[in-house]
Parts: sequence; structure tokens; C-alpha cells
Amino acid sequence: MPVSKLRVLSFGLTIDGYGAGPSQDIKNPLGVGGESLLAWAVATRTFRMLHGASGGDETGIDEEFAARGFRNIGAWIIGRNMFSPVRGPWPNFGWKGWWGDNPPFHCDVFVVTHFPRPPLQMEGGTTFYFETEGIESTLQKATQAADGKDVRLGGGVSLVRQYLMAGLVDEIHLAIVPTLIGTGESLLSGIDLVKMGYRCVEYVPSPKVVHMVLRR
Amino acid sequence: MPVSKLRVLSFGLTIDGYGAGPSQDIKNPLGVGGESLLAWAVATRTFRMLHGASGGDETGIDEEFAARGFRNIGAWIIGRNMFSPVRGPWPNFGWKGWWGDNPPFHCDVFVVTHFPRPPLQMEGGTTFYFETEGIESTLQKATQAADGKDVRLGGGVSLVRQYLMAGLVDEIHLAIVPTLIGTGESLLSGIDLVKMGYRCVEYVPSPKVVHMVLRR
Repeated sequence: MPVSKLRVLSFGLTIDGYGAGPSQDIKNPLGVGGESLLAWAVATRTFRMLHGASGGDETGIDEEFAARGFRNIGAWIIGRNMFSPVRGPWPNFGWKGWWGDNPPFHCDVFVVTHFPRPPLQMEGGTTFYFETEGIESTLQKATQAADGKDVRLGGGVSLVRQYLMAGLVDEIHLAIVPTLIGTGESLLSGIDLVKMGYRCVEYVPSPKVVHMVLRR
Repeated sequence: MPVSKLRVLSFGLTIDGYGAGPSQDIKNPLGVGGESLLAWAVATRTFRMLHGASGGDETGIDEEFAARGFRNIGAWIIGRNMFSPVRGPWPNFGWKGWWGDNPPFHCDVFVVTHFPRPPLQMEGGTTFYFETEGIESTLQKATQAADGKDVRLGGGVSLVRQYLMAGLVDEIHLAIVPTLIGTGESLLSGIDLVKMGYRCVEYVPSPKVVHMVLRR
């Protein structure tokens, strides 16, 4: 029986250490300037296929890492702010995520939130579950749903930091982008990854970004 | 008449954003674990020649960046802690730097410190001047000494941060190493480089590290 791992994959990080820009809202899902964090991934075939487009880089290093992000993944965990620009209690249940009727997950997605909401079944096998009992309980449910496959921790920065500090993350694949963002959400500041047993096990530069994989 | 620039060159940065490890002392001039920040440079021909050794990588990307660090440099500025493991007032003038009788600078080196000390002339054209009137005054003196060439700001982290925040740095060449250090001196945290007008103008990965050049 394979052991399910919790993995952060294809997570963009700027030179100055930010995983998202400031002032996230409906126009800037990754914060102001945050699109630079994803530009490498958006160009890949994997990303384009997932969003119903064709073409894209088929064979490069970036494509290989983007594809890894969906291989052997049985469930996702994401934060409320990654699901929605809404803050506070749900005013209604009209918001169904950033991804249209057929989101690119195609499995159960557990949304960590303080505000309960009924599960939301989408096309293509994605169901959003809204979890209000904390990150450990959410991980248990996601692991069960993954049924032996791994759980991908999608973000945002705040949720990744919470899982890191709780010692629950098995692997982090960072894509370091040659960009400054100036301010925003710092991914690793104040977290002693060495003390927690992580080391860098892969260093693979592409023409656009440098991929680094941390494991313990 | 060329305008002299203030440049930070060959400055190592870990994945987690540190430019030096913790607990610097005589055994750990870059702090505990800090040697990983310099390993790429130590292997280059430039570095080996400067330290009186032969061999080393002659043609690679790392050598090109290491060599840039000494081209057109007319003076250096370094912090007291980069000159010496001594803290507080000088107990005597016995400490003459980490680099032996013939240091690799071969020009005037201005040491920013709170504690006055007479200039120290070494072999090979290096003279250390101990400057107690602050970073701006030191930059003026170094620029004068550089006589049209550039001034290299050697470090450590604290001094680079002071010059950055004062808006006095023209160029920063970072070598991002695929290593975690866990704790130490964060180079860029809390400094909004975008607001200050910096952007990344070069991205050159080598097999060991990724070189990024920031300019404004």
C-alpha cells in the first residue's frame, strides 16, 4: 500500500522571496504582479491542455515539471483565498472558483476555510469540499480521498506556511522566477527548513526559471 | 569621464533568502553553513588565482561571473564583520583581515566601523582604511579612490542592506545557490526593490548556481 505524500508543486517564488503579490482581488488572483510567478507554467502543454487549449511547450524542462504536478495526485488542498476573492462569511454560494464549470483538478478539492458551505460538484470529476475543522483534519480527509495517491497542496502562501510549520509537508517544488515583486506574501521567511530536515534534492534550471525540489 | 558605480558582485543567496549563516566567528567567516554560499566561486580560476593557487574552472559561466567581480573595480567597501571576527573596540591592531599578507583586493578597501584604527597597508597594493563617519561618507571616499572605476560593495549582509535602503546601490549580482541554510542573515526581506526601481536584467543559470543581475 503506497503512502500518500503531501506535496507542494510548481510553486513560484520570486528572487525577493515572495510567493504572491500584494492586494489579491478578483482582477489579481495572485496579487498585483503575481502573474509573473506563473508565466513559465502557463506556456506549457500541460497547463494549456488543462484549460482546454492546445499547443504549448511539449518537451522542455518546464513541461516536465508542470506535468509532474498532476501525476499521481488523488486530491488537492487549497486555501479559501485561492478558491475565491470573497472574504468573510459567504454572502451566497454563487462563486464557483476561478476555473469555470470544468476545473482542472478532476478530483476532490478540499478548501480550508472558516465559513461552512455545502460541497460543490463541478463538471469533469472535481468536487469542492469546504473544511472548517483545521489543517490536520483537512489533510486526513484529503488523504482518504486520494486513496493511496498523493495530495497536492495548491496554496496560497498562507496555507503552505501553515502546513510547513505544522511539519506536514513531504515535498516542495519551487520554480524560482527571475523577477522581483517588491512586496507581497513571503513564502519561507522565519521558517527554519534545515531544522525541520529539508534539503534541496533537485536543481534543474530551464531557460525561464530554476526548478528546485526540497524534501526531507 | 566615466561615472563610478556602486556594485554588489558574486553575492551568494540561499533558496530561503539568506546571505550569511548564523553565529559568525573565526571558524565560520560566513556564519555556520555559510561556506555553501561561496562554493561555486571557490572553484573558479579567478578565485584560485587571487588566492595564489592555480587550476580551477577557466571557461564556464561561473568563472565569467567571478571574473566580472574584479574587472574595472577601483576600490572596495566592506563591513567591520567582514574584515574581522572581533566585536566592539579593537583590543589591539593585531588582526589584519582574513586574507593573509597579500589580500586579493589590490586596491584601497574601506572598512565601515564604529571604532577608529590607523590605515593598514598590506602587500600587493591593498590598504585598509577604517571609516567611522557612516556609509555615505565612506562611499564618497571610496569613489574618489576608485578614480573613475567602480566601487565594489563586498558585504556582509548588514552593510549591503544599509546601502540598499539608502538607495546607493547601482547593481547587484546574486548567485542563488541550491541550498537551504535555515536561519541567518536575510538579504532582501522587507526591502521593496521594485519600488526602488530595480529589475532583473540578467538570468544565467550555470550547472551549480543561478546568476541574477539586478539593476535600475
